[in-house]
Amino acid sequence: MRFLDFFRSNKKTSATVAKERLQIIVARERSTRGGPDYLPLMKEELLLVVRKYVMIDESAVQVQLERDGDCEVLELNITLPEEEKEGV
Amino acid sequence: MRFLDFFRSNKKTSATVAKERLQIIVARERSTRGGPDYLPLMKEELLLVVRKYVMIDESAVQVQLERDGDCEVLELNITLPEEEKEGV
Repeated sequence: MRFLDFFRSNKKTSATVAKERLQIIVARERSTRGGPDYLPLMKEELLLVVRKYVMIDESAVQVQLERDGDCEVLELNITLPEEEKEGV
Repeated sequence: MRFLDFFRSNKKTSATVAKERLQIIVARERSTRGGPDYLPLMKEELLLVVRKYVMIDESAVQVQLERDGDCEVLELNITLPEEEKEGV
């Protein structure tokens, strides 16, 4: 799972800061072009799912949508706020 | 984006079959252990989001949950049914 390098490479510089990070990647491979382009629409709904479990700040969400041949990739990188006081 | 190798490696053997594939990866890095383990709970909700856009068959969903140090990774690999007749 080499994509986790994203996390590992950041770890060195942020080791002293207690942050939690969440990365959501949706990749779609289409054998034929055409059909609705729903990945951009899914973005908000995916964030709604995440918001049920953790508080996220809109400014802490980085969104990328890439196309690479037959593949479309939606990538959400979320930095969660510092953890609440323990036990709360 | 090397994780897309998943798609590329499969392409050679399935090039003749018009299938669409969707891969959803949720990776969570926690600087401290503890806290609710919500990735397994998100699985069904993520599938509900996808179902708004495409029909998916439960048997076509492969789920993996891995832990690698501070990282937890939920991976959903979905093979979508062959495309509907064009224009429908």
